[in-house]
Amino acid sequence: MVLEKINHPNDIKKLKKEELPLLADEIREFLIRTISESGGHLASNLGVVELTMAMHLVFDLPKDKMIWDVGHQAYTHKLLTGRRENFANLRKFGGMSGFPKRCESSCDSFDTGHSSTSISAGLGYVAARDLQGEDYSVISVIGDGSLTGGMAYEAMNNAARLKSNFIIVLNDNNMSISENVGGMSDYLGRLRTNDAYQELKQGVSDTLKKIPVYGDRVVRRIKKTKSGIKQLFIPGMWFEEMGLTYLGPIDGHDIGRLVRAFKEARKVNGPVLLHILTQKGRGYVPAERHPARFHGAEPFDIATGLPLHKRTKANYTDVFATVMRKMGERQENLVAITAAMPDGTGLKRFKNVFPERFFDVGIAEQHAVTFAAGLAAGGMIPVVAVYSSFLQRAFDQIVHDVCIQNLHVIFAVDRAGLVGSDGETHQGIFDLSYLSLIPNMCVMAPKNKWELSDMLKFAISSDGPIALRYPRGEAYDGLSEHRAKIVYGKSELLYDEECIALIAVGSMVKTAHEVRQNLKRKGFECTLINARFVKPLDEERLLALTKEHKLIVTLEENVLEGGFGEHVSEFYEEIGSDVQVMNIALPDAYIEHGNVEILKKECGIDAETIEKKIIAAAMGL
Amino acid sequence: MVLEKINHPNDIKKLKKEELPLLADEIREFLIRTISESGGHLASNLGVVELTMAMHLVFDLPKDKMIWDVGHQAYTHKLLTGRRENFANLRKFGGMSGFPKRCESSCDSFDTGHSSTSISAGLGYVAARDLQGEDYSVISVIGDGSLTGGMAYEAMNNAARLKSNFIIVLNDNNMSISENVGGMSDYLGRLRTNDAYQELKQGVSDTLKKIPVYGDRVVRRIKKTKSGIKQLFIPGMWFEEMGLTYLGPIDGHDIGRLVRAFKEARKVNGPVLLHILTQKGRGYVPAERHPARFHGAEPFDIATGLPLHKRTKANYTDVFATVMRKMGERQENLVAITAAMPDGTGLKRFKNVFPERFFDVGIAEQHAVTFAAGLAAGGMIPVVAVYSSFLQRAFDQIVHDVCIQNLHVIFAVDRAGLVGSDGETHQGIFDLSYLSLIPNMCVMAPKNKWELSDMLKFAISSDGPIALRYPRGEAYDGLSEHRAKIVYGKSELLYDEECIALIAVGSMVKTAHEVRQNLKRKGFECTLINARFVKPLDEERLLALTKEHKLIVTLEENVLEGGFGEHVSEFYEEIGSDVQVMNIALPDAYIEHGNVEILKKECGIDAETIEKKIIAAAMGL
Repeated sequence: MVLEKINHPNDIKKLKKEELPLLADEIREFLIRTISESGGHLASNLGVVELTMAMHLVFDLPKDKMIWDVGHQAYTHKLLTGRRENFANLRKFGGMSGFPKRCESSCDSFDTGHSSTSISAGLGYVAARDLQGEDYSVISVIGDGSLTGGMAYEAMNNAARLKSNFIIVLNDNNMSISENVGGMSDYLGRLRTNDAYQELKQGVSDTLKKIPVYGDRVVRRIKKTKSGIKQLFIPGMWFEEMGLTYLGPIDGHDIGRLVRAFKEARKVNGPVLLHILTQKGRGYVPAERHPARFHGAEPFDIATGLPLHKRTKANYTDVFATVMRKMGERQENLVAITAAMPDGTGLKRFKNVFPERFFDVGIAEQHAVTFAAGLAAGGMIPVVAVYSSFLQRAFDQIVHDVCIQNLHVIFAVDRAGLVGSDGETHQGIFDLSYLSLIPNMCVMAPKNKWELSDMLKFAISSDGPIALRYPRGEAYDGLSEHRAKIVYGKSELLYDEECIALIAVGSMVKTAHEVRQNLKRKGFECTLINARFVKPLDEERLLALTKEHKLIVTLEENVLEGGFGEHVSEFYEEIGSDVQVMNIALPDAYIEHGNVEILKKECGIDAETIEKKIIAAAMGL
Repeated sequence: MVLEKINHPNDIKKLKKEELPLLADEIREFLIRTISESGGHLASNLGVVELTMAMHLVFDLPKDKMIWDVGHQAYTHKLLTGRRENFANLRKFGGMSGFPKRCESSCDSFDTGHSSTSISAGLGYVAARDLQGEDYSVISVIGDGSLTGGMAYEAMNNAARLKSNFIIVLNDNNMSISENVGGMSDYLGRLRTNDAYQELKQGVSDTLKKIPVYGDRVVRRIKKTKSGIKQLFIPGMWFEEMGLTYLGPIDGHDIGRLVRAFKEARKVNGPVLLHILTQKGRGYVPAERHPARFHGAEPFDIATGLPLHKRTKANYTDVFATVMRKMGERQENLVAITAAMPDGTGLKRFKNVFPERFFDVGIAEQHAVTFAAGLAAGGMIPVVAVYSSFLQRAFDQIVHDVCIQNLHVIFAVDRAGLVGSDGETHQGIFDLSYLSLIPNMCVMAPKNKWELSDMLKFAISSDGPIALRYPRGEAYDGLSEHRAKIVYGKSELLYDEECIALIAVGSMVKTAHEVRQNLKRKGFECTLINARFVKPLDEERLLALTKEHKLIVTLEENVLEGGFGEHVSEFYEEIGSDVQVMNIALPDAYIEHGNVEILKKECGIDAETIEKKIIAAAMGL
């Protein structure tokens, strides 16, 4: 095994040239085997095996800084920096992260998780290097999908001024997680497929640019052939116009060519973009064929590529998808928007039936939200389906473009709460806070799958900005007997007792129900309320509770700061009530990767911990 | 007066051709006179007089949709849509907004204020129009400064797929508020200045693009002249590569040409970018010479261009600027970043002394923050100076790129709290909430000018992410006798009494001091505490207060939701204390433009209102 010779950073440099293809094969085998067991990002990692090897052959770690955009493609990088053993605990609680982490290795220069940050971070390193007179290379590796995010463009716009070396690797696999979209994608497509580019790309020389052509016969010819020219003669023109030196396209699976390209790129005094063509899922046929399915994969059977564990219950995403399709039929002005997540958000099903009313805008949450605002102003009812942690990108657009104008835009906030193995960057634990602080915004969370359906219908028939947040994974199908009509700003009373009242938000209704049953067995009676609305608060209910209750317990899968619990506490302080409020919420911390049940326990929002806390408080009443 | 003939939308179409130049002159005179008296955005508005007139000559309002990026340049649009009389109350409380407002006129299609939103909103309208089978034009007017914002690029990337008409007007005045920056700006510079463009721009024809050129002699020639070609022969190539049809550049002060260009643009089946060259401040010499100074102008003397009211006291911005310059000398690794606001944030002074440690990244708050994170990871101490409402744009970058890694990035959050005449879009009233919900973040606010200085020094010598928020305008110089050393997470006790405790944040310390003095006269004794830190909470102090106090009053110039008051309320609920908490904060609403003192009274955070509330509560104790 060649892979076994790789135990420390830079070990790859000790290999013989002929061992390199073997290593690539072994890495692929290792990745397929590991991820088939643990789950994880497969397709993107299989695509960058040679690219990563070439980078490690040319650059020195940890001196040189490699920044991996999004970061889910850094598995080979982790293997080559001595973390092979840690793959046994990949994405498990206490184990190795699926993303680069500075705290994990000095070879990880910058933590990533969200898209389109790597050029900005790389430029920061470059500026720090130059100001301190240091000498190291900075390489930002960004996918063509991430290039649909505006931040990457902001950074390229700033790279132009650089007089020192900075390497941007455009890892072009013609995909976001799903199919890529937009003008930039089309442009890259032209770059990729035009043979002329391949032929001409070496022919550029600064010294020749002074040749007079203006006024010449050539001019007249060219005037007539604008489109021809731009596709034939000027490779990477768009990037060159932005002030970057363009090199490419380069076959991303040819280690020799890659090594030469990196050595070339390192010599450029200024920002250089290396356009590298890779294939997502490379070397594993099921992943080559279905790269989206093998983006973030659950454990699977290597022979067939099929998931090991069959899902028996519907996810919240499925419920959302079904209702959207149904409502699309009833409501002609319903439109759906996703930011590069047609599969992940379930909107693919809406797309299949109503292609003209479906918009995938690329990894561009900011545009998604303001585009939705424009649609609403123009008379449509837009539903923006986006993951909780990614919606953070569009905070200002929600505040500024949707809510000031009080436009009827619906936010379907998926992956809200703890998401599990993706960890810190992906936990959707801030949305109740950052959404409920916005004027005019209405924030809801369903207790089970039927309520998600009811709430979505309510939101569509309602007005103004409304966010619905629901968690990743299996939809809760308990408490089905409780299905009171949704009324704006009103909570739902599930069980009416005295003394202790549990008011739970969304996913925590299930937990609160469990807590209530356990407490009942121990002789404590609890009222159970499904909050439904985090904003506006059901003040009437809160007020009524003071009559028969002494302890009010709020429960939410969100940080305490600015969340539901704080709003409730503030309400009771304001009215000068003497009920005691206990807020069950996530701690003021980033929460690492791991199984959600373990994480809940660690954070003290599991039924058992909550039960103990309530008993302790109840004893002191 | 021609201007007097303009009283309704489309009235301009009734004018004779020869009256148009007169109207342009009269509009300029009107704007200069009005803004010299009331203050407002001058330079940008003088630049687009002819552009706006041409748009109103070609398009029909309110049927057609004009979307003004940022929106401070819409004064001529307001004049031409029958709002001349309202200029008497421009930007005054209850008067006309300085930005487009849908609630103000059916001719305002979309509310703006922040940068780079117009293409996204326009695309929303276009999609709504096409889906509903309607027939109107959509025109988004965006400045070259706004083109440095990534959102504009996200939108252009999405415009590419359009098969129907959409007009993007690039209002190119070669400026953001201050000088423009970056690769895009250089590119536009080349477009502007190259005569060849002017000559060749008509010669493009789709039918001719099939002419075979590949393999030809021309090819060999062109291979040698890449740079020459790209500057000479392909006008607007960058935009064309993005999938937009480029028309331009066009003289933005020639009404005839503009009208023809708009008529041409309207015929294109697809997205078209009209590159229009304008001059900021056009027609008023002081504004032509100093467009940045006449961006948002205070009342001025028309003859000299000098402000009517001399400032006698320093602004918080000045204090920040002074300390930054001073600390730049002491601390070699201190760097400063602004998003197109070198003047507004005061960083120009730092730039003048340490040009290599100063970075203006354009209107690109997202990049600014992640770039700062990269700088911090590389060993520098970055200070990101940005207005509170604009920092909203970088919420995810603060959460994801700075705070997860606990990087030492300092946020100098200027214009925090009520900003006055700019109104809803610019009020900095959410930052305490959206910043304090982020783990690892430290949030501070100074009570007066000396404390801003002390806090900035503290932040630089500290570690991790720290935000300092301070208001627009004159720095408070009272309470100078209180200058206890800044200690992490500790509040400052100003006056120690019993029964009632006022805990005030930043700007509200002054108000609380006034309230305390008034209450004292009426026989109520109040403890006065300067919170200093909104996060972390000074729990020790809060706990200690319960011994001798029954009423705790928090005061902040921020919305209640998720702010300081809620955190304090939650704390007292959690410990089961029986003190009563009263939260003085801004209401859950967008707050319109107007004099800050008036706004404070309207919102109930003025001394008099607070005093009454406290007396009422104290009587009930």
